[in-house]
This record gives sequence, structure tokens and C-alpha cells, in this order.
Amino acid sequence: MKRNQLPIGVFDSGIGGLTVVKQLRRVMPHEDLVYLGDTARVPYGTKSPETVVRFACEDTRFLLDRPVKSVVVACNSASAWALNELERRFDVPVFGVIVPGAEAALKRSRTLRIGVIGTRATVRSDAYRLAIRKSVPGARVISRPCPLLVPMVEEGWTRGDVTRRVLHEYLDPLLKQSIDTLILGCTHYPLLKTAIREVVGTGIPLVDSAVSCAKYVAGRLEKMDLLAEGRRRSGVIFPFVTDEASRFAEFSKRFLGAPTKKAIRVELPTG
Amino acid sequence: MKRNQLPIGVFDSGIGGLTVVKQLRRVMPHEDLVYLGDTARVPYGTKSPETVVRFACEDTRFLLDRPVKSVVVACNSASAWALNELERRFDVPVFGVIVPGAEAALKRSRTLRIGVIGTRATVRSDAYRLAIRKSVPGARVISRPCPLLVPMVEEGWTRGDVTRRVLHEYLDPLLKQSIDTLILGCTHYPLLKTAIREVVGTGIPLVDSAVSCAKYVAGRLEKMDLLAEGRRRSGVIFPFVTDEASRFAEFSKRFLGAPTKKAIRVELPTG
Repeated sequence: MKRNQLPIGVFDSGIGGLTVVKQLRRVMPHEDLVYLGDTARVPYGTKSPETVVRFACEDTRFLLDRPVKSVVVACNSASAWALNELERRFDVPVFGVIVPGAEAALKRSRTLRIGVIGTRATVRSDAYRLAIRKSVPGARVISRPCPLLVPMVEEGWTRGDVTRRVLHEYLDPLLKQSIDTLILGCTHYPLLKTAIREVVGTGIPLVDSAVSCAKYVAGRLEKMDLLAEGRRRSGVIFPFVTDEASRFAEFSKRFLGAPTKKAIRVELPTG
Repeated sequence: MKRNQLPIGVFDSGIGGLTVVKQLRRVMPHEDLVYLGDTARVPYGTKSPETVVRFACEDTRFLLDRPVKSVVVACNSASAWALNELERRFDVPVFGVIVPGAEAALKRSRTLRIGVIGTRATVRSDAYRLAIRKSVPGARVISRPCPLLVPMVEEGWTRGDVTRRVLHEYLDPLLKQSIDTLILGCTHYPLLKTAIREVVGTGIPLVDSAVSCAKYVAGRLEKMDLLAEGRRRSGVIFPFVTDEASRFAEFSKRFLGAPTKKAIRVELPTG
């Protein structure tokens, strides 16, 4: 098989990365996708850099064994900490969500005061600030870890009073610092877009890293001649998870809004 | 070394199990304790039974290699799903938190309408209901999974407006069903005791599974002649974690209120 006919690999700490899969499908409808959700060890965003890097390497090795032609790190925490190591260690193009998100925010921001929300690991890495200031050294980046948002989305509380109050708690300090653009630096946050919009108002663009990542990956694969050119059929999604496979269908409906092949449970070789 | 001079092993999905360690120290101040927090894979309470059982077996094997004279499963989710398998597979006394919690609740309840809050895994297991109805078949058990409470405690939000609203969301339906006793079926919940008390009022006893478990373990070890009789010095706590060790000191202060030996990071042999 020609290399460009292989699927694109995508991994995430859990099922949140399906928001990235959804956008990848939108911009590259003919590509096959292999998705790995490390649901047995989710979340990564509360763990240390060393552990996130180790898990990301194990996930990537699994995808390369399928095989795949490139790897998309859908998880912000893993993108923030592990991307360099993955590029160094593995011999395929590896894409993360941070650089595309940073570039999209710079396009939208007029005052160059950019807010970032994410997990503890992502914010601690300072990856968005570094990426933004590499392009525009004078930009101001104000970040805030929001550890409750992922469990809140997984509980299904994406609107209503409690959700609004939690969002105010996290976002009010950013608004006080006059951000003019907000990066949603975690795969789960797009599901909170409506509620976040209510709290920050309509004047602040919300940068969905899933959307910017998908466009970025499509552009890069095209340049590298790695798109499955000439394919007529729709792309197929092959999902793998490390915890039970049966709940995947329910989640994929919420996050992806489309059916997939049946998820298969796997154990990752560790170490 | 005589077997009764060995430490007691305790494991938990993370650092919440230190609330159990605190109570074990209170009732058995001379016992040495080996604590394993599986912080790289925390939480267990959102994972499937099979995964929880697999992780619990790996944790137990690690403790037995120290060696230890008995194993306390501080994690409610692991107690709920894995206790039978651990007893079957390993040749030391293994204690969980469910049966002691159930017995303590039965002692406090007058109308035999008992509420249980816990993780998704614990509630799904129905372990508290089974343990309570094995003693008193007529008792009514009303359970509710509360997935947001663990991240809320870890965020440090143990009081205040948001915390109260989240607790109302979870507890109001239980109160409507006229429970007269509430089991705090997760290691993190004792840190929310004051806030929970405000929401449920003073008329409903809160059963802290850490307290009942410690008394139960002390009683059982005494019967088995496994207490470190004659030891004069204070017991020592040896902590191990699977994610970074440096944050352990900060958490142990909050959960345990006492210093420990320096935590050591370990990788568990899997499979």
C-alpha cells in the first residue's frame, strides 16, 4: 500500500479527542482515522510531565504498529509536554494542537491580550505562551487551569446554573485582565462553548483548538503529499480504547456526532 | 522478623486514601504503614470493573513485595469491585472499606433508609446495598454517583457557594427520599464534611468510611494476633506513588495532617 493511503493516527487521554476527529473528518472526509483513547489512564491533565510523556510515547507506538502515516496528538496536555519527544523518537510527522491554536488566536486578537484555559498540565507547561510569543514576542498571554471543567462535561453539565457559576469562578479573573481572545485549550471545552459564550459575552472570539488543528494537519499533509488522493469513498474511523469498549458508542455520539466502527479494547505495552 | 512486626499495606487510586491512613494511625499508633497511591492512573472511580480489578491486583502485588502483613484497600471503588478477587488471589488478610461502612451505617440508622454517595464505579457495583442488606434484608439503600466531588476537593473547593450548589444538586434527591443516614462512600468526601453537614442538616449522621474501616481493621488484626504487640515507638509511614513524588508532601499535609517519610516514585509491573 502506498504510504498516503494509510490512515491518520489520533490519540488522546480519553474520549475528548473525538472533538478533534470530528474536525479532521470535516476537512478531510476521505481520510481513514485510527483513534486511540487511553481511557484506562485518563486524565493526563492532572499528571506530571514525565508521566504524560511516557504515556504519549506508549500511545504513539501503538498507533505506529497499526500502521499509520502520521500522528495527531489530540490531547492538549500531551501536545504541550510530549510533542518534541515524539518528534525526536518517531519517524512520522507528528502534529499537536498547541501551535495551530496559538496561530489561530493571533489571527483573531487585535490587542494581543490572549486568554488560555486548560488543564493543570497544559497551563503548567506554558506551551501556548511560548508558541504565541515565538510568533509575536510582544503578545500578552494570561492562562488559567480549570480542572473542574473536564469532569463537568463528562457529567453532562454543559449548561445551567452550576455550570455558569463554575465558569464565572474560572473566567472572571481573565476578563478582569481584559483579554480579547480566549483559547479553549482542552478537547472537552468545545462542548461548553455556549455556556462560555454566555459568561464572556459575544465580543471575545473563542478559539477551538480542534478546528485550528484539523486545518493545520490538512495543510501540512497536503504539502507532504500524504493525503489519500483519488479516494472516492468516505473515510472510516477505527477506534481503540484501553478501558471498556462498550461505553464508547454513547460518548462518540456526544463528542463526534457520527457513528464509527465498533471500538476495540487493547492493552498497551508499557515501558 | 515475626510476621506481626511487618507493616500494614494500604493502597488507593491516588492520595485520597490518606484519610484512611490518618484513621489507621489514630487507632493503631504503633503500626508501620506502607502506602501506595496509584497517582499515574488515578482515578479508578470512573473506570470499568475489569480495569479496577486489574489495577487493584497490581497494587496489591507491589505491597506484598515490600512485604506487608495485611492489605487495606482504602479506595471505595477498588473495595467495591476487587475485594473478592484479591482475597482469592493473595495469601494475606485483605480489608476493604465497604463492609465496615455498611455496618457503621446500620448502627446509626433508625428508619433503615440509608443514603450512599460515591464514584460512578462504587455506585454501579451496588456493594454498599449488598453489604447492608446481607445484615438487614429489609433496609432501604438509596445511592447516587457524585463524579464532580473528587475533582472539587482536589481543586480545594471544600466550602463556598459553588461547592454548596454542587452538593445540593447531588444530595437534594436523596433528602427527598427521606434518608436518615448518609454514607460518605469515597476517600475524598470526609474533606467535604462541613459543607455536606450544612446541606443535609444536623439530623443525619454522616458515616465516614475511613473511620469505620480503621476500627474494623484494628479489631480484625487483634483477633488474628497480627498487631505489633510490645512496640513502643510510633509507627512510621512509607509512601510510594506512581506519578511524581514531589507533590505528595503538600497533599499529605491536607489529607493526613502529619509528616511522612519522603514519597518514592515507582513503576508497577503490569499484567
